[in-house]
Amino acid sequence: MENQSAPPPLAMSDLLLGLLACGEVFGFHTLAEASVRSSDFEQRVSLMHMAGVHAQAYDTVRQRLLAGGAQADPIIESFAGPLEIYNQRTAPASELEALVKAYVGTGIAADFIREVSAYLDSQTHEFVVGILAEPQPDSVAVPQIKAALAADPQRAGRLALWGRRLMGEAISQAQRVAVTQPELLALLMGSDDLVGFQEMITRMTANHSARMEAIGLYA
Amino acid sequence: MENQSAPPPLAMSDLLLGLLACGEVFGFHTLAEASVRSSDFEQRVSLMHMAGVHAQAYDTVRQRLLAGGAQADPIIESFAGPLEIYNQRTAPASELEALVKAYVGTGIAADFIREVSAYLDSQTHEFVVGILAEPQPDSVAVPQIKAALAADPQRAGRLALWGRRLMGEAISQAQRVAVTQPELLALLMGSDDLVGFQEMITRMTANHSARMEAIGLYA
Repeated sequence: MENQSAPPPLAMSDLLLGLLACGEVFGFHTLAEASVRSSDFEQRVSLMHMAGVHAQAYDTVRQRLLAGGAQADPIIESFAGPLEIYNQRTAPASELEALVKAYVGTGIAADFIREVSAYLDSQTHEFVVGILAEPQPDSVAVPQIKAALAADPQRAGRLALWGRRLMGEAISQAQRVAVTQPELLALLMGSDDLVGFQEMITRMTANHSARMEAIGLYA
Repeated sequence: MENQSAPPPLAMSDLLLGLLACGEVFGFHTLAEASVRSSDFEQRVSLMHMAGVHAQAYDTVRQRLLAGGAQADPIIESFAGPLEIYNQRTAPASELEALVKAYVGTGIAADFIREVSAYLDSQTHEFVVGILAEPQPDSVAVPQIKAALAADPQRAGRLALWGRRLMGEAISQAQRVAVTQPELLALLMGSDDLVGFQEMITRMTANHSARMEAIGLYA
């Protein structure tokens, strides 16, 4: 039994798939909230459909967990706490904040999952990349956000703060996930790959900055 | 041209399909809001899937409008105003109110659309009935609402008021729709069928009472 200190690869894949599935539920919520708040009917419908894609992705990921013999639901639900806290701490106060949350928050979550999946077996990695290839809110959100800021440039400062808060809360809750799921932390920090971990954070920060720049803001 | 006082059947079908499609977007919102507020993960996922069904139904109805040669989007969007007002005036203040709104509001809307579709050609009627056969939130909502009321019977009075408010606002906005869409009003009130109209209101009220009774409340 002494050699069981490292968790088996399957369990790690299951954990990441559980996080991904749970993230799809919260991604659904973020897009649905942006849809509810939208004052433009066409945009409302676009965001509704993007929310629907998250609902379907949840099923696809859960089915893969079940097909692999995992106890899917308890694994998925184990991530609900941190994601719910993130969601509550980033409740949007306006249509524009909801749209930025949909754009920035979905981007950060996808980056994180994609990065972590690179540590796993290639089959799981490819599956995860396929799921994350689902339509992103960028095409809807970016022009709308830019138009709103062009119409009222005074909002830029507050919105830049909002973007930073979304990133900050995402990091806080990622840390919380890592603490409650030590196997995931071990995967990220272990195997002499501390350099790789630092690079991952650097890439995620760069992606976040690029997303903020795309809407004319500094991260 | 004198014999064109009655609107052609196709245009009436298009109007009802437009109302149905628009209602699916707001049905999506109601179910999504109940999902976001849900404290139970399993229920959260169930409500998310029901919201997703509304998003798909929107596409199905819109495709039928387009296939019939209608200018689908302007027709659909013409109903957004009254539905948005309904939605804003019935913003739930708690998880339980969100759940009752999903249950009661979806039921009232489905009743109304089903009743009106009976005045149209049989193909449209059957199509509409098929769309409305989508999973309803009852199976999720009813046991949860009853459990919440059993745990705290004091909430019954306030929740009964909430149910009445949902019905009252639905009637108000149905009247607004009728005023802004006189063809629809003519369909309901015209052709010597005032008795039929009264019976429709009676059936809808009876269905609403039955739904409230199913959760242990009086309408």
